[in-house]
Amino acid sequence: MKLNELGLLVVISGPSGVGKGTIRKALFEIPDNNFCYSVSMTTRKPREGEVNGVDYFFVSHEEFATRIKENRFLEYAEFVGEYYGTPKDYIEKKLDEGKEVIMEIEVQGALKVREQKPEAVFIFIVPPSKQALYDRLTKRGTEKGIEIQRRVEKAEREYNLAYKYDYIVVNDDVANAADRIYAIIRAEHAKTERSIHKYYKLMEGNQS
Amino acid sequence: MKLNELGLLVVISGPSGVGKGTIRKALFEIPDNNFCYSVSMTTRKPREGEVNGVDYFFVSHEEFATRIKENRFLEYAEFVGEYYGTPKDYIEKKLDEGKEVIMEIEVQGALKVREQKPEAVFIFIVPPSKQALYDRLTKRGTEKGIEIQRRVEKAEREYNLAYKYDYIVVNDDVANAADRIYAIIRAEHAKTERSIHKYYKLMEGNQS
Repeated sequence: MKLNELGLLVVISGPSGVGKGTIRKALFEIPDNNFCYSVSMTTRKPREGEVNGVDYFFVSHEEFATRIKENRFLEYAEFVGEYYGTPKDYIEKKLDEGKEVIMEIEVQGALKVREQKPEAVFIFIVPPSKQALYDRLTKRGTEKGIEIQRRVEKAEREYNLAYKYDYIVVNDDVANAADRIYAIIRAEHAKTERSIHKYYKLMEGNQS
Repeated sequence: MKLNELGLLVVISGPSGVGKGTIRKALFEIPDNNFCYSVSMTTRKPREGEVNGVDYFFVSHEEFATRIKENRFLEYAEFVGEYYGTPKDYIEKKLDEGKEVIMEIEVQGALKVREQKPEAVFIFIVPPSKQALYDRLTKRGTEKGIEIQRRVEKAEREYNLAYKYDYIVVNDDVANAADRIYAIIRAEHAKTERSIHKYYKLMEGNQS
């Protein structure tokens, strides 16, 4: 019996190249989960095969701007002329339904989410060593040395923000990391501050 | 990879009759665990079959009194002329070895432990309903109504101390409750405040 019946917003973050996407995928393969993705909203055009409401919510620049004014994003950012944001209303609806909403997001975005949703669970994914991350960043594409260097420096700046998160999970093994995140979600539901109200309600029942 | 290599002191507590002992037993049946019991110290004589250092540490009244003076107990109590206490040094040794030390203790004792070991993990076990606990308390022995009433009133007073714990776990199903405690232990190891020092040490490694 789970005392806290509302879902949790679980923010999975960490430096680029650390394997956030792979871990998220492994997490959704856990049987009998009640996870759902946080679907982002964007002004960019859908690519072939992308479905509105599944891959993204596709909206016009005008609608995006209106939603910014109405404070309807947990965070948003602009990237080469297009906007990307996390709509609040979708997440709140899913949390009320008791779903765990899994958000995979880079470090700056995660810290913006934290400002608006301090009760969410913030997990920082780290590589098993600096070398492991460096290897991943250099193997990733066809970029030149300077681009790789830029990435490594960004990752190093982000490392130092780990203290702003609730949990640190090492990605030494994907299944292991996903399993640890699942344990964190279960534990968070049992936390006294999330469950005590329901508990006292349970105890109000009369004894015969 | 577990960033925090020290063991955790896990305090399992809750009102009498809630099934703490059964849950503790189920917890130790989890495969590949590195749990160990917190072995209490007592002045009472060993019963047949009881082994010193396993069931209890058996000591004289003199030794117990000396240890009280030396502040070597996390908590102790007297019961019909005999003393029972939780020795600090044994627990610290096991934690240093990386063992999770599982302590099953009644509510008053747990709150004393909290004063000395605020970094321990405090879990409050609750029945799925007030009725369920009442049923267990009344079925337990051959006591008369007044003794049952006394127990129920004690349990009701203890209910109200749930807010002093870190987690509330419902004992609706023993395996489930043990599994949730295991999730809590894993999550606690990943908590930023327990793991960040090791994490930064890991990141100090040179990149090639």
